[in-house]
Amino acid sequence: MSKPAGRTILASTIAKPFQEEVTKGVKLLNFVPKLVGFLANEDPAAKMYANWTAKTCESLGFKYELIEVGKNNLETELIKANKDDDVNGIMVYFPVFGDNQDQYLQQLISPEKDVEGLNFLYYHNLYHNVRFLDPPHNQQKSILPCTPLAMVKILEYLSVYNNILHYGNRLYGKKVLIVNRSEIVGRPLAALLANDGATVYSVDIHNIQQFTRGDDLSEQRHKVVDLKGDEYTLEKLAPQCDVIITGVPSESYKFPSELVRHGTVVINFASAKNFTDEIKSRAGLYVPSIGKVTIAILLRNLLRLIHNKQIRQGEITGEEEQETPSS
Amino acid sequence: MSKPAGRTILASTIAKPFQEEVTKGVKLLNFVPKLVGFLANEDPAAKMYANWTAKTCESLGFKYELIEVGKNNLETELIKANKDDDVNGIMVYFPVFGDNQDQYLQQLISPEKDVEGLNFLYYHNLYHNVRFLDPPHNQQKSILPCTPLAMVKILEYLSVYNNILHYGNRLYGKKVLIVNRSEIVGRPLAALLANDGATVYSVDIHNIQQFTRGDDLSEQRHKVVDLKGDEYTLEKLAPQCDVIITGVPSESYKFPSELVRHGTVVINFASAKNFTDEIKSRAGLYVPSIGKVTIAILLRNLLRLIHNKQIRQGEITGEEEQETPSS
Repeated sequence: MSKPAGRTILASTIAKPFQEEVTKGVKLLNFVPKLVGFLANEDPAAKMYANWTAKTCESLGFKYELIEVGKNNLETELIKANKDDDVNGIMVYFPVFGDNQDQYLQQLISPEKDVEGLNFLYYHNLYHNVRFLDPPHNQQKSILPCTPLAMVKILEYLSVYNNILHYGNRLYGKKVLIVNRSEIVGRPLAALLANDGATVYSVDIHNIQQFTRGDDLSEQRHKVVDLKGDEYTLEKLAPQCDVIITGVPSESYKFPSELVRHGTVVINFASAKNFTDEIKSRAGLYVPSIGKVTIAILLRNLLRLIHNKQIRQGEITGEEEQETPSS
Repeated sequence: MSKPAGRTILASTIAKPFQEEVTKGVKLLNFVPKLVGFLANEDPAAKMYANWTAKTCESLGFKYELIEVGKNNLETELIKANKDDDVNGIMVYFPVFGDNQDQYLQQLISPEKDVEGLNFLYYHNLYHNVRFLDPPHNQQKSILPCTPLAMVKILEYLSVYNNILHYGNRLYGKKVLIVNRSEIVGRPLAALLANDGATVYSVDIHNIQQFTRGDDLSEQRHKVVDLKGDEYTLEKLAPQCDVIITGVPSESYKFPSELVRHGTVVINFASAKNFTDEIKSRAGLYVPSIGKVTIAILLRNLLRLIHNKQIRQGEITGEEEQETPSS
């Protein structure tokens, strides 16, 4: 194979400016923020992820504490951490029970300390294209879930967001395919990109849905339509897309390279490799994984939580800047 | 009609940085460069254009002289200007005879003074994706014809060129429709954009041609294919395109708005209005005319001619920078 026309862009490259932003942000505080991670399962992958969070936190100037607890003690421990003034951010390495009880535990984390942006309040704002916590003052930006926000930042980095367009419409004209419709990433991501102006095709095992604000973006927020019929198969839609994003948590799943039009932006957020190496000869820009960006964004969310609290307490005033969409 | 999702971008806005670049460039010279324009027809539009060139030249720090001559004296006058050391740039307001004799006159302008970049040498380099005049030293950049180059600069300004991609491939994955295949603008423009990685559909009254470097950009320069068959009609191709460029010199011609997919980048380079106002409700970015950019680029070419000459004379060395594609 001759040298491909496109480029592979590593998450470490994209993460760098956010790591710098976050390091700078910490230095401006008069204390060292503390993130607490709760591990209540035996999953070695979760443990590895916890160690990696710890390393990143420390290298960027944050305190990190890993608390290992039994499943049945997690609720009590979360309530304690919510009340502890020394704790600025809380995260849990899910799954814990692996059923709906996990959602109860997730919602138990105080929105003021929810670095992952998983609280119902934040999802609600995302789905409704509400970007501030305190309308009409609009001083406190809403928190966005880490992985979807990391994806927005990656798409900005790759110039898929067009800064010449108005803020809020910067994906106008772009078609995006997302293979994953989980409540944690795929569905909020589809909504977020559609709210920013894209036409999103959301694929899961059951069907394909379209998320848009209408062809002409006349709606204030996205609406969802089930796509039915011969023209709306993956085989027909994928080659029309400017961006293809996958997040299938299976080593055996591979997105069919032949459906990727030459020059497409391709991003995989699953920890499994969703593309074969052939993708490099077709993608314009290929981002094989995004973990390092997500973790930088997690710490960026932590700083935003701290800023929002300072604004509520009248210690600082919020910036009105709207430079970066959806952030 | 509610407020459109897209934006109209005026040529004056896009021209500004080039006007500044050119003004700065002139100040760095130890003389004031002189552009001479030859008017050998009675066309009031040409006279107006000449006056406008004069005004722009003077406001940006250049000398401008308009020489009005009879058609039959133009050849002698051009030869004189070629030899005149006080003249740095020459342009002719065509048409003069309105037939092939005009091309003879055009080629008579010395390549060293050809600010419009119309010399065969420059077209040859453009078609063959040769970017320097002096390989392998690559110190002297080739001159590009003004209007096609202005279009590249506009597409860069609008972020259609993606700077994350490698230099020379920055239109990879983009589909561009060009309605005009004149030898002066449409055909060289199609070649230029295809050489930078785009798939270009070139439309004239006879047929539609495709210009590409191959799906995977494996060719060094573009190749041209006549598109035949039901799937290659304007009706089918236009809605697939990211960019639609028109240059039809007729007040009665209007590109059908309904073929423009919402969010498309739309640019008209004809002096006639090739779109109805409806386009504003469909285009992502709409540039209704480009004249002011073209004239700034004309003066930028003049500075490049001067620099190339200085390099040949050993007065300065060429910059190796390849920041801006095709320029």
